Amino acid sequence: MNITHIEHIGIAVENMEEAIAYYENVLGLKCYAIEEVADQKVKTAFFMVGQTKVELLESTSPEGPIGKFIENRGPGLHHLAFAVSDVAQSLQKAEAKGMRLIDKAPRQGAEGLKIGFLHPKSTLGVLTELCGKK
Amino acid sequence: MNITHIEHIGIAVENMEEAIAYYENVLGLKCYAIEEVADQKVKTAFFMVGQTKVELLESTSPEGPIGKFIENRGPGLHHLAFAVSDVAQSLQKAEAKGMRLIDKAPRQGAEGLKIGFLHPKSTLGVLTELCGKK
Repeated sequence: MNITHIEHIGIAVENMEEAIAYYENVLGLKCYAIEEVADQKVKTAFFMVGQTKVELLESTSPEGPIGKFIENRGPGLHHLAFAVSDVAQSLQKAEAKGMRLIDKAPRQGAEGLKIGFLHPKSTLGVLTELCGKK
Repeated sequence: MNITHIEHIGIAVENMEEAIAYYENVLGLKCYAIEEVADQKVKTAFFMVGQTKVELLESTSPEGPIGKFIENRGPGLHHLAFAVSDVAQSLQKAEAKGMRLIDKAPRQGAEGLKIGFLHPKSTLGVLTELCGKK
């Protein structure tokens, strides 16, 4: 697996308006995109911080993965996404090393990237995403 | 506050040896430093990923902050650290905007950096650290 940098950090928030206000007005970051991902039941907001994005995630349904996460653990750090050159190959390599995959093959993520998740049960509790152009 | 990049991501782990093996052998990252911070009751291991570090944190005591975190929530993403030019000034600005501070003034952190934490109660559930040279 050829990880070049941290592509983004996913953060579960209860109220997107309040969260954007905190990231902009207190931390001085700038929200450059808001996107709804209907099949994941989330609304997302992106901020660039050096070479890494902060991705805020607000659930659009209590049954969605972010809604369940917040119900169980409260808002906060949700997942860590590494940039790789080839998501399909990286998922295969991870599986060959005993990792449990959430996505057996890459699927389409936000911002036109291919993405795939490793299960936190095999990544020491960190929900881990791989992102890349292919 | 002038945030330039994400300085590091802190990850609580139960077993440092197992965790280093995962980050090196599965993700292909390289541990470049191991440091014990006695007053925080933690052993740390660092990996460089682009311009951001992954900081693994293993508790050296069940009463330490990482020991308590793992007891309550299990291992996983623990805190997010932003690089700023001036930690003292950034803490003052955050407090002026209503943030609750864990550190009223910068203290010495790992790798010779000054650090200060904002309380997760005022940062929407994300334990947030500010790091810088002064």
